Amino acid sequence: MFAPNAKRRLWHHARLATMSGDGLGLVENGVVACAGPRIVYAGTAQEFSGFTADERIDCEGRLITPGLIDCHTHLVHAGDRAHEFALRLGGASYEEIARAGGGIAATVKATRQASEEELITQSLPRLDALLAEGVTTIEIKSGYGLSFAHETKQLRAARRLAERRDVRVMTSFLGAHSVPPEFGSDRRGYLKEVCAMLPHLGDLADAVDGFCESIAFTPDEIAQLFDAAAAAGLKVRLHADQLSDSGGAGLAARFGALSADHLEHASALGLEAMARAGTVAVLLPGAYYFLRDTHPPPVETMRRLKLAIALASDCNPGTSPLTSLLMVLNMGATLFRLRVEECLRAVTVHAAMALGLERELGALEPGKICDLAIWNVTEPAELVYRMGFNPLHQRVRNGHDS
Amino acid sequence: MFAPNAKRRLWHHARLATMSGDGLGLVENGVVACAGPRIVYAGTAQEFSGFTADERIDCEGRLITPGLIDCHTHLVHAGDRAHEFALRLGGASYEEIARAGGGIAATVKATRQASEEELITQSLPRLDALLAEGVTTIEIKSGYGLSFAHETKQLRAARRLAERRDVRVMTSFLGAHSVPPEFGSDRRGYLKEVCAMLPHLGDLADAVDGFCESIAFTPDEIAQLFDAAAAAGLKVRLHADQLSDSGGAGLAARFGALSADHLEHASALGLEAMARAGTVAVLLPGAYYFLRDTHPPPVETMRRLKLAIALASDCNPGTSPLTSLLMVLNMGATLFRLRVEECLRAVTVHAAMALGLERELGALEPGKICDLAIWNVTEPAELVYRMGFNPLHQRVRNGHDS
Repeated sequence: MFAPNAKRRLWHHARLATMSGDGLGLVENGVVACAGPRIVYAGTAQEFSGFTADERIDCEGRLITPGLIDCHTHLVHAGDRAHEFALRLGGASYEEIARAGGGIAATVKATRQASEEELITQSLPRLDALLAEGVTTIEIKSGYGLSFAHETKQLRAARRLAERRDVRVMTSFLGAHSVPPEFGSDRRGYLKEVCAMLPHLGDLADAVDGFCESIAFTPDEIAQLFDAAAAAGLKVRLHADQLSDSGGAGLAARFGALSADHLEHASALGLEAMARAGTVAVLLPGAYYFLRDTHPPPVETMRRLKLAIALASDCNPGTSPLTSLLMVLNMGATLFRLRVEECLRAVTVHAAMALGLERELGALEPGKICDLAIWNVTEPAELVYRMGFNPLHQRVRNGHDS
Repeated sequence: MFAPNAKRRLWHHARLATMSGDGLGLVENGVVACAGPRIVYAGTAQEFSGFTADERIDCEGRLITPGLIDCHTHLVHAGDRAHEFALRLGGASYEEIARAGGGIAATVKATRQASEEELITQSLPRLDALLAEGVTTIEIKSGYGLSFAHETKQLRAARRLAERRDVRVMTSFLGAHSVPPEFGSDRRGYLKEVCAMLPHLGDLADAVDGFCESIAFTPDEIAQLFDAAAAAGLKVRLHADQLSDSGGAGLAARFGALSADHLEHASALGLEAMARAGTVAVLLPGAYYFLRDTHPPPVETMRRLKLAIALASDCNPGTSPLTSLLMVLNMGATLFRLRVEECLRAVTVHAAMALGLERELGALEPGKICDLAIWNVTEPAELVYRMGFNPLHQRVRNGHDS
């Protein structure tokens, strides 16, 4: 559907936020050139020469950033939990909602009942909302199927979104998200089954994820899962220390995880281990906001340890029904006090690292994929400061307008 | 530009949230019919008869609400304060920012420098973002001109937005927003001048607004302003009790104000006076969020007193650079614990009351203006629950598609 593009294109009269180096890598009077899907030059107009372009695009001073990367989503699911949201505002307790069939069980039920095509149909509007704001790469997890058939259905639906839209989809297998009702309280029995699924995922999953929390799986159980992932040759990531410090950050680091996500209650020791392991800290302010959490992640410690910090939407029906990565940037700044350059690196270069794609994506550098977001603003801060405003001018993926 | 519409149109196969009565006024299998700009029927299909429509629109089960009303904005201004936002995240104090020419003074300077046409050009993208989510009526304040010439320039720009877009604009004269630099510390001198402007506003202002706060004008000064407004035959509204209890709620009530806005620190006595006076409580969660306030308005007291609660964007460059009324709904629920029906009434029937337009707007009732928002959802809660997602199907104003 989206034919490879062998054209030599050139964007000029632009301001670039290349994300090269430690900061925004700002370039005034900048040029980006691509040959086919890859960048061949990104820098000043003055130092650029010897390129014959098939097409020259005058950006009229606009800001160009790398295409945005949403590195943690549960975008593919069926149904919503708006009713539960309304009940809770009306004063219902979590227990009452659970008894009424709410909570994650409601999404598992709806997702199991949906066909692969229905999952795609329901997920496309959410995906479109993200793409409209310059997202070019998205990670999507399973975790609402909780059986081999339904988990792989979710993963296939995620993969097929990339056939329906011009976007790069990375998938994570999150069988260890919750225990399905048919297993009752037999969490270990279910986990054994999850581990047994790993060798049969084929190329449906790019990584294995787990939910390590008092209300989900223990560190020992996650270790077992990650051992099985290693045996199957799959990289890992982890939902860690969101509601309490269960040692998730350190556990993720011990297994060389690509990322540990949430981290509101991560310990300094855990974060130090992450720094040594090169594990990215993925922060999810949408869930923090939606759950009215008051304990922000330890950003100052992360800074001191020079952890790579990413931000993502966590798009999911229960705790973050959020489909705006620009709103995530604002929340990262407003709620977590991340600086502008930290926010923007968090959805480009660091998000690419969280997906293991830092050699391909996340910065405007020769050799990298030419995924761009061209904005009707000149100041990077404007992308973080506004709320509910989309200044995207043009999305470019693999060098073509998208 | 937008010709009057004399057509007889009918929307059927819809779910209605009419806002009639105390709640959402839900109607299943509903019909809305209009003759020209006014509603002639809104109710069940079963009870509807004897209407010959020029056009019948099958809503395929979609939810119809009244067109949304954003009843408190500072939409017309020049420049932005993204740089100041970035400085603050980098650790700069308010004092350092003020010394660097930031704060409201920066917006006053930019707004004074802008021509009327430049103000319109800069404001249109913000307006478009609001309209895209079903807003059909918007209130816009002056308050960044702070001299007769520049205040009226702002008000004219606001009026002229209604010529450029299909929207109803209500204006408020907010000369008493801040003291301009040329008056130094002579607040009373400036206020005298503001009062003297009132008889000369002609039809540029639908109401007079003021900022009653320790950092702005005292209750005595506001009383003087409101006396002058009464003498000029203008209704009043007030920025009240946002940062501290300065008796703003009671003051607004004493002058029969249409609304008192913010109210985080309003006293029970003040709220009781508002209830007696029929003054609407306009809550602005965008500013609360952006300023990281932790003292929410006393919603429970407002409920007990049966105050009409409205919600608005407060769109402004300093404390609420927000152009999504749907995000405001979510913030009203998430941050202020307003229920779904309270949130939706807050941007329809109660927002109409805040503008003195409750006889014309805000509910789907015969005789009212046919401003509709038709949504790609069936459950009202979905409009409040999601973040950064726009399910608008069609905006209707004065009975025509818009």
